[in-house]
Amino acid sequence: MAKGASISGFPEWLPSERVVEQRVIDTLRRVFELNGFLGIETRAVETGASLLKKGETSKEIYLLSRLQEVGHESDTPLNDRLGLHFDLTVPLSRYVVEHSGDLAFPFKRWQIQKVWRGERPQEGRFREFVQADIDVIGQGDLPDHYEVELPLVMVSALERLREFGLPKATVHANNRKLSEGFYRGLGLTDIEGVLREIDKLDKIGADEVAKLLVEGCGADESQARACLELAELTASDGKELAERFDALCAKHGIGTDGDAYQLARQGLDTLAMIVDQAAAIRPGSVIADLKIARGLDYYTGSVYETFLDGAASLGSICSGGRYDNLASQGSRKYPGVGLSIGLSRLVSYMLHTAGARANRVSPAAVLVAVWNEADRTAANRIADTLRSRGIAADVAPTAAKLGKQIKYADKLGIPYVWFPAADAGEDGQAAGDEVKNIVTGDQVPADAKSWEPDTVYARQEVTIQGVKEA
Amino acid sequence: MAKGASISGFPEWLPSERVVEQRVIDTLRRVFELNGFLGIETRAVETGASLLKKGETSKEIYLLSRLQEVGHESDTPLNDRLGLHFDLTVPLSRYVVEHSGDLAFPFKRWQIQKVWRGERPQEGRFREFVQADIDVIGQGDLPDHYEVELPLVMVSALERLREFGLPKATVHANNRKLSEGFYRGLGLTDIEGVLREIDKLDKIGADEVAKLLVEGCGADESQARACLELAELTASDGKELAERFDALCAKHGIGTDGDAYQLARQGLDTLAMIVDQAAAIRPGSVIADLKIARGLDYYTGSVYETFLDGAASLGSICSGGRYDNLASQGSRKYPGVGLSIGLSRLVSYMLHTAGARANRVSPAAVLVAVWNEADRTAANRIADTLRSRGIAADVAPTAAKLGKQIKYADKLGIPYVWFPAADAGEDGQAAGDEVKNIVTGDQVPADAKSWEPDTVYARQEVTIQGVKEA
Repeated sequence: MAKGASISGFPEWLPSERVVEQRVIDTLRRVFELNGFLGIETRAVETGASLLKKGETSKEIYLLSRLQEVGHESDTPLNDRLGLHFDLTVPLSRYVVEHSGDLAFPFKRWQIQKVWRGERPQEGRFREFVQADIDVIGQGDLPDHYEVELPLVMVSALERLREFGLPKATVHANNRKLSEGFYRGLGLTDIEGVLREIDKLDKIGADEVAKLLVEGCGADESQARACLELAELTASDGKELAERFDALCAKHGIGTDGDAYQLARQGLDTLAMIVDQAAAIRPGSVIADLKIARGLDYYTGSVYETFLDGAASLGSICSGGRYDNLASQGSRKYPGVGLSIGLSRLVSYMLHTAGARANRVSPAAVLVAVWNEADRTAANRIADTLRSRGIAADVAPTAAKLGKQIKYADKLGIPYVWFPAADAGEDGQAAGDEVKNIVTGDQVPADAKSWEPDTVYARQEVTIQGVKEA
Repeated sequence: MAKGASISGFPEWLPSERVVEQRVIDTLRRVFELNGFLGIETRAVETGASLLKKGETSKEIYLLSRLQEVGHESDTPLNDRLGLHFDLTVPLSRYVVEHSGDLAFPFKRWQIQKVWRGERPQEGRFREFVQADIDVIGQGDLPDHYEVELPLVMVSALERLREFGLPKATVHANNRKLSEGFYRGLGLTDIEGVLREIDKLDKIGADEVAKLLVEGCGADESQARACLELAELTASDGKELAERFDALCAKHGIGTDGDAYQLARQGLDTLAMIVDQAAAIRPGSVIADLKIARGLDYYTGSVYETFLDGAASLGSICSGGRYDNLASQGSRKYPGVGLSIGLSRLVSYMLHTAGARANRVSPAAVLVAVWNEADRTAANRIADTLRSRGIAADVAPTAAKLGKQIKYADKLGIPYVWFPAADAGEDGQAAGDEVKNIVTGDQVPADAKSWEPDTVYARQEVTIQGVKEA
């Protein structure tokens, strides 16, 4: 995106930037597979009925129409039209129900795919972007240990990206039952409304949120302030969490024997389990943070957001939660828990803030020079020999002056230029081949059947080449 | 697609089938990178103006509209609306012009991405599918050796898929200039029309094509028959090709001194070069086949289609050609040559006809058993130790009876079940761990820090498990 996308909100990377994105994708996939997640891909479209069912982003949908239908789009009812998926969770739920007979449950899957949001164009918002998701879906029930394990898989995946310039990531967890119980204990009833306003805290600040709670959610000033006090509560272990929460309940007159407190307590116990278990396995990776609300209304228990050290303005780069009611088949439910990395935004941060760079644009380690066009077949044979040994090789586009061929290699970041012997025969293996490292200037005799590039120059790598901006 | 796609034309694979598709994608990418192609991804959308410019598939476009625009779609002129790309060549041309200052030319790129065709639903036609493309784009000019090399890269890529059940692939090449020169030599002028009808030869047969040439392209009976004779011409070397072509010209009174013959000769020389050079590097991989026309009207020279031995009904699985006029910037042209594999159709063939199968559904080689929920953390530690050594591991979902845990492993194809020692401590490494190969029944003592799975069972692989249908 060196020059910005030519259609606002539809980012595109230059080849050198794509190397970084591809490395991020490969790294995440590797971690997901090491953890036993199955890879799937769902179609890009869902029916209007499915897309409009759940979630606040349901307003931000791209609908499709065939060119032939232009002018007659409205002949098809909205529910029957096709639209592009806005996340990977709604498609997963549909996929699981559709193929339940062919899946082993609990079904653990990873999915890295593009999603689309049909928003009005606005600065810095992507309308097409890649998400990297892991979810586990149970048939009938789903053990709560996955509510600890899935955030930890994401933490270990993000940990692997730190060598490419990503700061340390911390998962901030909350539980909807805890929030709901507390709000009900205060006497509030518009739970969805309160959660939606609390979710705006980082964007508009406490005073604005308090105003919205009073104006739109039936709260009085004191109830609104209590909601904000809950949102300020953080804890890094279960005992601390329970103590602070109970103190807050006592302060606001929420009795421990009421239904509201019991509901909150369910959420609190799960949240305490999550932070304590996570601390045992990866200390400092997960904290309880009771302002986490999540806009999407399909979450029913745990919710997560993930922040990078020193990158608060970036917002959450990995979010998710537990959803017990998203998918069902007759009376059978398919509860799930999952997290999603906003990969495009993460890659944008790595490129433009963290200074991640590819060591070379081309995957080729070697450019085979061509002395004149009659020798091209011999040059191709040398390249093929290198390739058969796993060494990526390109061949000079024309038999231009050697300086021009070296310049082409240099522009692509290809570290080695191969000089075929002038008398190369049928097998392209005449004695007299030489290879030059154009970074160091070293030039040595070489045989394509046995030569190995220096390990420093062998692989296309992503490194941090300095922070460009704060 | 065990049960067929739930929306016609939008295929989706089961996890075990996705393993095969992912392996095909990984294999193609590997070959493309070994050959020095740069990977890019373009946005899924282009403007109407760009999509409607070229190509017969321009009629098969999905246009987008935001949910809020429903009922007002027609307020936006067609050229300004967004639509999903129907191939990866039109987006590449736009990308190259847009980013020309940041690219090294000739620009060699691979791209594996979904495309969409807004067709009426019909049996067996995909409306969403994955294409795997390689192209090389020059700035100003492009050497013709790429017209040999690109089909050969595709041949070597398809060769790597033979171990997964794909039959041998042969590229059938033609040249538009050759056809055009011949048609003009006969006195025909509607060249696009003739090419379009000849392209239908395999589908509707010679008699029907002759009829269409007479009815719609201004040909008389004898001209139509001459066009069909040209389409019957095949050759596996340049000399044979030239002799047969010249004989045909003589028979139909096309003089070698006319402009028409000279144009045909240009095409013939390039085509002869292609088959001869290809024969020198990979004998039998490319033949001249003068019935190859290609529907898309952006091709200006070489055109290719690729057929699998014994799978004629599948049609071409890898097609492309040279296009000199698709992209330009002022007076500067960006000529290109490229080929595209219809990956979804290929994977469908491999799964349903060639019998390609994953040896296991889960990427995990090991399932760590859990004796009771209190021991889960120890089981997780064992799994983490294996993962840190590159061994993919899953952990049993519940502390169910051992038989049930083994059944879960078996259903996912996980070959090893790990039994933690009952007294596993903090590091999960207590003496007494054992691991059982549930395929062979072998059970041995094991330490997660040093144990290695048998190579036969270590990796998730794709193999041929017998042809299911003809």
